[in-house]
Amino acid sequence: MLNINKSTQKELDRVQSIINKELITEQTIKEIYDYIFQSEGKKTRALISLLSSRSKNTTLSKRIQLASVIELLHTATLVHDDVVDESNLRRGSKSVNQVWTNSYSVLIGDFIYSKAFILMVKLNQAGILGELANATNDIARGEMIQLEMIEKKLSLTLADLLKVSYLKTGRLFEASAKTGAILAGAKNNEIKNFGLLGRSLGIAFQIQDDILDYESFKLNTGKPVLKDFKEGKITFPLFYAIQNATLKDKKFLLDNLGKKNIALSKQKKIYDLVISKPSIKETQALLEQYLCETKKYLSKLNNHPSYDEMLNLINFSKKRRK
Amino acid sequence: MLNINKSTQKELDRVQSIINKELITEQTIKEIYDYIFQSEGKKTRALISLLSSRSKNTTLSKRIQLASVIELLHTATLVHDDVVDESNLRRGSKSVNQVWTNSYSVLIGDFIYSKAFILMVKLNQAGILGELANATNDIARGEMIQLEMIEKKLSLTLADLLKVSYLKTGRLFEASAKTGAILAGAKNNEIKNFGLLGRSLGIAFQIQDDILDYESFKLNTGKPVLKDFKEGKITFPLFYAIQNATLKDKKFLLDNLGKKNIALSKQKKIYDLVISKPSIKETQALLEQYLCETKKYLSKLNNHPSYDEMLNLINFSKKRRK
Repeated sequence: MLNINKSTQKELDRVQSIINKELITEQTIKEIYDYIFQSEGKKTRALISLLSSRSKNTTLSKRIQLASVIELLHTATLVHDDVVDESNLRRGSKSVNQVWTNSYSVLIGDFIYSKAFILMVKLNQAGILGELANATNDIARGEMIQLEMIEKKLSLTLADLLKVSYLKTGRLFEASAKTGAILAGAKNNEIKNFGLLGRSLGIAFQIQDDILDYESFKLNTGKPVLKDFKEGKITFPLFYAIQNATLKDKKFLLDNLGKKNIALSKQKKIYDLVISKPSIKETQALLEQYLCETKKYLSKLNNHPSYDEMLNLINFSKKRRK
Repeated sequence: MLNINKSTQKELDRVQSIINKELITEQTIKEIYDYIFQSEGKKTRALISLLSSRSKNTTLSKRIQLASVIELLHTATLVHDDVVDESNLRRGSKSVNQVWTNSYSVLIGDFIYSKAFILMVKLNQAGILGELANATNDIARGEMIQLEMIEKKLSLTLADLLKVSYLKTGRLFEASAKTGAILAGAKNNEIKNFGLLGRSLGIAFQIQDDILDYESFKLNTGKPVLKDFKEGKITFPLFYAIQNATLKDKKFLLDNLGKKNIALSKQKKIYDLVISKPSIKETQALLEQYLCETKKYLSKLNNHPSYDEMLNLINFSKKRRK
């Protein structure tokens, strides 16, 4: 568990209250609220926003509002991702319940997106609005490119994977850090630094997520086992595993990639091939490289009131198990 | 065909150019662009925006930009609606192609939404941003309520139908007229009037759409036949038909409501029951009532440069066949 300062935790709790208040307005939404918010989530993006917005030049209520906007945007993305991923997975017939959930998910995602924009407009800062509108657009673009990449398979490059990781994850981390700094009235070079810090931390976060997707086979991460693999996604660990594999193992991996039902013995083999030393070491080195870069940007912010908490978050990134 | 002034048509063409320019940026999007924009659409909402924003107090380029934003928001809604409706209809197994289209539709919808917000932010007018963010939220809420109503069937009231028609259609018409007036620098009472005009015109537009869904059985509207009925939606014409039907006919209608495959002879009977005199007359009277209300609001704007064109649009609303 990430150790969070008491005062920061109180701020995060207020973010959750705002989200609850904004979303539970209609009966329809009340009923599916529990389904979507089964877990409250780590709120990493809201945390980054709260840390970078800490300043004497703004009010607590505006900081909470901005962090809520960012968490709402992230939630809307998650809700829509479920539809996108589910559609790829469940190719057989669907139960009425599943269908309803899918239709509602599209609409509730739109509902949450627009709630975020309503709150954002109330902050009345053009710089923040522009950054978040652009980030939202980049996230959708990243998801589309990822969908396209499922077809590409062997022709994928490390640059492709880094581009998608930036767009779908790094981009909102970047916007969270940057808009927080804008709200704090920070100077241009500090805003830029926060953006770069968020960007590299987000990519590191995605790399660790990709590793955890395979480690879920042995660890109890609470997430479905080998989800990315079953959805046909080539992520960092699989990319390196394919590079390092013998021709026979490579064929085995590619033959099973994207299959929903994989026998346990085969899952074990996939896990072994991906988590085996040479491949996973390369993924871990890449993660380390991005964390190192993140710390480099943080070092330029050594007078910032959130310096220690930021460092704590960065160090936690490679230790987290969910 | 609606008769559009030459200068207004030129403005509408520029709206289309902006939409093309903003959307065809990524390879992924280029490839599915044709699928989504098979028809360029009537651009009724963009037209309303252009008409209400006509003024010496603003520039042509800002007016085009606002109209483009509104058309983009509407397009995003359409793209997501397809996913929502499709999920309800196609309960059997899906082809890979259909699945891909569905996943892409969710993401391209998000992409278009956020493009609209990016353009909107550039206009840099808090009043316009707030109105459009709220309208987007109301549209999603309206669609959710409509989905819920599919289960309600017989307990539906006219008030329910009017609420949904306002939220899913009237709301964006209202916002188009209102934000146009805001951009034009109009006085508060004129802005309010434009909003009310848009609202009632939008509801009238929806009523005519609902009628056309049944008339599609005989007319060549270019739309699928009895789409609403097959999706299980009770719209204005069906609502009145059920009220006027004998017990036997009512049972027949409800038994077939929501079925995807309906024999041609049954479709003919559904058409006859819904388009029969007493029921359809009530729907037409309701349409007339909303058009009358729209003209009442227009009469207060008799000095506006777009007065004649607005009147033309209102009169066209009940004549249109697609």
